[in-house]
Amino acid sequence: MMPQRSLTIDTDKTTRTTYVLGTQLTVNVNRCAPPLAKSFSVKCTPNVYYKVTPQASGRSAVPYPLTTNSILIVTMDTVSETANDSKLSVRYYGEKTESLGDAVLHLTAVEISLDVDADRDGVIEKNNPNKGSWKWGPKGHGAILLVNCDSETKYSKKVDSEVEEISKVSEYQLLNLFLKDYMIVVGRGKLTQEVPYLGGKSELELFAEGLRFPDKDFDGLITINLSLTEPSAKGFPESPVFTDRVVFHISPWIMTPNTLKPVEVYVCSTKDNTTFLNSIENLVDRCGYKLKICYEYMNRGDRWIQDEIEFGYIDSPHHRFPVVLDSPRDGDLQEFPYNSILGPDFGYVTRYALNEKVTSLDSFGNLEVSPPVTVNGKNYPLGRIIIGVAFPTATRGRNMTKVVQDFLWAQKVQEPIALYSDWLVVGHVDEFMTFVPAPDRKKFRLLLASPDAGYKIFKSLEKQGYGKEKMFPGLPEAITVNEIVNDTKLQAGNRYVQNCIDWNRDVLKKELGLEEEDIIDLPILFKMIEEKSGTRAVAYYPDMVNMIVLGDQLGIPKPFGPQVNGKCALETEVSSLLEPLGLKCNFIDDFAPYHKLLGEIHCGSNVRREPSPFKWWNVEL
Amino acid sequence: MMPQRSLTIDTDKTTRTTYVLGTQLTVNVNRCAPPLAKSFSVKCTPNVYYKVTPQASGRSAVPYPLTTNSILIVTMDTVSETANDSKLSVRYYGEKTESLGDAVLHLTAVEISLDVDADRDGVIEKNNPNKGSWKWGPKGHGAILLVNCDSETKYSKKVDSEVEEISKVSEYQLLNLFLKDYMIVVGRGKLTQEVPYLGGKSELELFAEGLRFPDKDFDGLITINLSLTEPSAKGFPESPVFTDRVVFHISPWIMTPNTLKPVEVYVCSTKDNTTFLNSIENLVDRCGYKLKICYEYMNRGDRWIQDEIEFGYIDSPHHRFPVVLDSPRDGDLQEFPYNSILGPDFGYVTRYALNEKVTSLDSFGNLEVSPPVTVNGKNYPLGRIIIGVAFPTATRGRNMTKVVQDFLWAQKVQEPIALYSDWLVVGHVDEFMTFVPAPDRKKFRLLLASPDAGYKIFKSLEKQGYGKEKMFPGLPEAITVNEIVNDTKLQAGNRYVQNCIDWNRDVLKKELGLEEEDIIDLPILFKMIEEKSGTRAVAYYPDMVNMIVLGDQLGIPKPFGPQVNGKCALETEVSSLLEPLGLKCNFIDDFAPYHKLLGEIHCGSNVRREPSPFKWWNVEL
Repeated sequence: MMPQRSLTIDTDKTTRTTYVLGTQLTVNVNRCAPPLAKSFSVKCTPNVYYKVTPQASGRSAVPYPLTTNSILIVTMDTVSETANDSKLSVRYYGEKTESLGDAVLHLTAVEISLDVDADRDGVIEKNNPNKGSWKWGPKGHGAILLVNCDSETKYSKKVDSEVEEISKVSEYQLLNLFLKDYMIVVGRGKLTQEVPYLGGKSELELFAEGLRFPDKDFDGLITINLSLTEPSAKGFPESPVFTDRVVFHISPWIMTPNTLKPVEVYVCSTKDNTTFLNSIENLVDRCGYKLKICYEYMNRGDRWIQDEIEFGYIDSPHHRFPVVLDSPRDGDLQEFPYNSILGPDFGYVTRYALNEKVTSLDSFGNLEVSPPVTVNGKNYPLGRIIIGVAFPTATRGRNMTKVVQDFLWAQKVQEPIALYSDWLVVGHVDEFMTFVPAPDRKKFRLLLASPDAGYKIFKSLEKQGYGKEKMFPGLPEAITVNEIVNDTKLQAGNRYVQNCIDWNRDVLKKELGLEEEDIIDLPILFKMIEEKSGTRAVAYYPDMVNMIVLGDQLGIPKPFGPQVNGKCALETEVSSLLEPLGLKCNFIDDFAPYHKLLGEIHCGSNVRREPSPFKWWNVEL
Repeated sequence: MMPQRSLTIDTDKTTRTTYVLGTQLTVNVNRCAPPLAKSFSVKCTPNVYYKVTPQASGRSAVPYPLTTNSILIVTMDTVSETANDSKLSVRYYGEKTESLGDAVLHLTAVEISLDVDADRDGVIEKNNPNKGSWKWGPKGHGAILLVNCDSETKYSKKVDSEVEEISKVSEYQLLNLFLKDYMIVVGRGKLTQEVPYLGGKSELELFAEGLRFPDKDFDGLITINLSLTEPSAKGFPESPVFTDRVVFHISPWIMTPNTLKPVEVYVCSTKDNTTFLNSIENLVDRCGYKLKICYEYMNRGDRWIQDEIEFGYIDSPHHRFPVVLDSPRDGDLQEFPYNSILGPDFGYVTRYALNEKVTSLDSFGNLEVSPPVTVNGKNYPLGRIIIGVAFPTATRGRNMTKVVQDFLWAQKVQEPIALYSDWLVVGHVDEFMTFVPAPDRKKFRLLLASPDAGYKIFKSLEKQGYGKEKMFPGLPEAITVNEIVNDTKLQAGNRYVQNCIDWNRDVLKKELGLEEEDIIDLPILFKMIEEKSGTRAVAYYPDMVNMIVLGDQLGIPKPFGPQVNGKCALETEVSSLLEPLGLKCNFIDDFAPYHKLLGEIHCGSNVRREPSPFKWWNVEL
């Protein structure tokens, strides 16, 4: 239905008003009529159209009888060339059809609309009927806005949208609206602004930049209203004539699962990791991806590049770019994401913990995302975010900070799952799980660390007469298969660990809609460490599930398992589990520079991947 | 599907675990198998049930062949009498069906569930399958919680839920969970708590109280998780066994439209309003409602009881009570709602403006609610809230404070409509609109003040020869009909006012799905007043639309219009418009104590009404 505007006319005085194309003027003819009027007729210039309701019955209905609800509906279809160039008049008649006066209306037709790309094809269309509301899904509508979180500046770099400190960005500051010359029309706390009407067919180009990501107190929707007012009598305020409205949804920050194609691999160079770095360089080179080394002057010895940052992206029909989420962890890598990653078309966003202690669970080894899944008929075409928390056991456990959790949940399109990771000393979900691509079933497998699977190998080796073979052969830690199998304390710890991982297995099966056949158990043992804050687990030998996934090439921590026929029994087992899926297992020695420091290859690397081909606005929430 | 729990068993050691009725234990038989095992068989006590998947083909499938994904599913259907009284064992066989060992499992079956009234019938049911999520609508589910915002205390009164100042209520404090003896289990910032398991068939009664209404940063949903943990090996943390979850939705605060039956009428007694008070007393008495007079020691001369408070209610299947919303206006009536209304089963809620100037638009004469409507197929069975703001004209107009607007929008079930009211000196929507019950159409009419309708009467009187009759007869303000009709300045002002009201008419038609026939124009003139902050409007004579609606009895400001045949022409017109709807017009003199102070009967009264028979949780959002 066309927007309607009620208008009063007057037999005493000519009424002048602005008519906006595409609207209807409705005149309550009775309310404006002179006393004793019984009927009326209408005349107008050719470019003005009118209709009278209720429609008078019979054919000889002119003049129209005047009833309580006689409404005259006026429209025009072309813009006026000069002010007041279009006219309409209503003549009122008394009992005996004598004229009681003419109410004259002068009209100036204008075309005015606030236009956006509401159909999401990358092109701004004219006056889309759905531009004023947001609807998710492939049949949805509503325009999309990006947070201007990259940085075009070269010197004294700042995120483009920020002229003030982040902590000062109030909730009013969701959007800046600029004129062509970068003059801010709306934004920076100024919520409304008068703009002169230019007239004719001229267009006023406005540019919008998002300032904040969706969060707990902001659902991502921004409404912009344009109102046209016209002068009333002298000395009175202007009266409203027309309002137009558009709605934008800010693009959420979106994570990329292991099943998406890698673009760049990030790794730190440290004093002690040359051999490891060479192995990674070889692997990445062979795959044809780009390797980005974070050198020591920047990493200051902090090698845990998985933990400091998470790569994601923001997307709209007209533009898309990667955005790095900076963890509140803030180790010595703290300045790397802002100083070295933020740049033109590479955005940056972070969250600061408020009155909360940042713990190891705030590292982004504890933030992963599943491949696309369907769960009980509900589609997650961008997958689901996975984080680790203290639930369900601890009344005083460590947790991921509320600000980061709130941020992740507020992005909506990858509804998070909270796993139990506080049983680990380091406490990251990537210590017991990962996803690898697969050609069949759901196009991926969930890999889980499994002490049971580990013991099965060691017991089997013992049975087969390899009891005196050594785990960690040639290393100071070397220990026989027999010793491992017979270590009851190690066994008890691993039983506990298996319980904890099994809890997460059940959550993941339910929340990702997985069956047993979608899961592969990797043979990994853990050991328990007593600390002041409690007894928690770490990997006993290099934690193979903590791998880097580069397409079909896997960079897996070399486990240093017992040798059988000149081959590592653990490598043999893992290869036999993964190679049938078309995956290549590259076992890389991370023992000294990573494993012994309680991390592995995944913790020490990061991968920027291509965005999903699925458009987030097509998610059906 | 039953909740599943993965469990490990062991041929070396008996496994003991707690089984929760209604769940499935899933044992990956292969992962737990001793090396070289090829098949297995299962034995158990009679109260234990098991199933093996994948189901072995053929009938002679015992012992079962051991495959990669052999899963044993174990269930029980009765609570254990003593610990570990139920048993199951798996025997593994090698190539030649020789036994390789038994994995023994001892089970203790318990019944544990967190129970709520998820089907919303007022009675807590056992383990409702939908208790863990919230769904709106008559086919919806999920439990309901009230904010404990009434006060049972008699001396040094406090809202029951508050032991600290409101300003200190953090966002964590959404709920208190008590044991029978008022010991807090969860709440007051403590988010988790260990509770010992009592065993057997004993029930632990928990009591929940809501602490906060839905608001911008709180969607009204509260999740409570109950986790069962059991000891692992000595020195290790407990492992999680089972989690149960219930969801509550806090009742929104709900307003009551004029079409609902009144219960109590509130009015202030002041030095100068005795006659008015008598008239109201007569009217209320005749209707059979209760009159509550706020005496001067309490109101301290502030008579605008409409503006200080808005009556609403909160509702659940088990309990319901009225809740007064206290305006941030805070005139001399400031202490009345807390001191005199808050009490047992009468709740109180308020919002404090933050860094914002409180204006006249924060008075609750500027907060109304429509009767139930259907708009383009969308139902609003509880009506829609209506507020007045500066939009669409002002770049620097007055507004309703953000905190109150946020609160109103967050209640969700009466989605607000913002009208333009800043063109009035006082700036309240009740100065130009109200709703009255009607027997036909949508069961109500929208009444709008209309200068056009006003001029029509005065011009008509002039035409009929009553030009010398006086408006305000007998009052110092007396003025002839001729003078009014010929006052061009008054005319220009009313043309402007009509434009402003017409703008709102169009918004209301659109947002409430009204047709012209649903609207009645009342003949009311305004005058413009120049103030420092701009030129704005006030009612020229008592503003009849600012009436009190008590069922079919209307208490209307006596307009003091020109006399025709011994009757006020304005009263005659208004009666002729409203009486055909079965309404009785009682014109009450509010000239000196209200009209001259820029308010009328509605501003000076308040009505508590019966809650809607429609239950808010049945709204389909």
